[in-house]
Amino acid sequence: MNFLEERIVKDGVVKEGDVLKVDAFLNHQMDIDLFNEMGKEWKRRFTGKNINKILTVEASGIGIACIVAQHFNCPVVFAKKSKSINIDGEMYVADVESFTHKTKNQVIVSKKFLTEDDHVLLIDDFLANGCALQGLIQIVHAAGGTVEGIGIAVEKGFQTGGRIIRNLGYQLESLAIVESMNAETGEIVFRQQNA
Amino acid sequence: MNFLEERIVKDGVVKEGDVLKVDAFLNHQMDIDLFNEMGKEWKRRFTGKNINKILTVEASGIGIACIVAQHFNCPVVFAKKSKSINIDGEMYVADVESFTHKTKNQVIVSKKFLTEDDHVLLIDDFLANGCALQGLIQIVHAAGGTVEGIGIAVEKGFQTGGRIIRNLGYQLESLAIVESMNAETGEIVFRQQNA
Repeated sequence: MNFLEERIVKDGVVKEGDVLKVDAFLNHQMDIDLFNEMGKEWKRRFTGKNINKILTVEASGIGIACIVAQHFNCPVVFAKKSKSINIDGEMYVADVESFTHKTKNQVIVSKKFLTEDDHVLLIDDFLANGCALQGLIQIVHAAGGTVEGIGIAVEKGFQTGGRIIRNLGYQLESLAIVESMNAETGEIVFRQQNA
Repeated sequence: MNFLEERIVKDGVVKEGDVLKVDAFLNHQMDIDLFNEMGKEWKRRFTGKNINKILTVEASGIGIACIVAQHFNCPVVFAKKSKSINIDGEMYVADVESFTHKTKNQVIVSKKFLTEDDHVLLIDDFLANGCALQGLIQIVHAAGGTVEGIGIAVEKGFQTGGRIIRNLGYQLESLAIVESMNAETGEIVFRQQNA
């Protein structure tokens, strides 16, 4: 197990309905030292990639993205989520459907902050069915930029998001991929990854 | 002018209705080096304070809080905003009214992540009428913790939030306090602060 898998086993909680609570260190309370470890690991996995911007989506991706940005020496842009449709043409907009909440949202980025010169690393805390991520990819393409890679903290490997993204040819680096969880025993099985 | 005031003059945009857009570096695109400067300055201003947790509120406070936390060697907790009232008793909840959007929201923190042992630094990007901040203070008190200080990037000095918070006796350190703005000329006047 790597450092993140170990932390998930130690402080994560498995709930009914394939819910994995990691709010003690990842997406409510946030362990900044852990985020720096994640940044170091993604920097290693994306060696040779020419990344000049990190794009994430509010809210729980922002903290990870900011700490990770220090390892790539680049600014962060976070996409905003909104139900509103009152957009003034200065924004890139993608429609996404939340797996957790079963709601439709828009993911929005100002055109000022993404251009054809941008080589983008996408960062988020969770990947399940991947709709939010697909929205971010759509926005980078709309701007004429390049998706250099995708860094996810925890991927639910038993859902379709990761497979779709890899099928599309993107370098997706999930630091922990959960293959299965058992809410009764609390057991978590991770996918074996090559170090 | 300090480093943040200089940056606001350089990259901020004054809009009608006392709106100051700082989305190029603070709350949409985020300049991580700038956030580290802010962390250094707050560390200096809160010298001698025994801070073991930073509390902020989603979404635009999170990035600043995470970078600043590196200067205090502590974890960050971000309060969630929600319109929902379906709370299960495991949460601290405060009602807040947004100045910008004229909506009522709840600010929510899990009881697991704030206790009477916590000496808390509150961090946010903007302070206007201060309702969100009052909600965070309410939550720290509900947990039995101590508010050691409040760090704000940009305070609108012509609104009431800052005065209320200082009247209550809190050490509020706003790195830039805007006294007045002129949307026609773009001029921004800052309150003189002792270095």
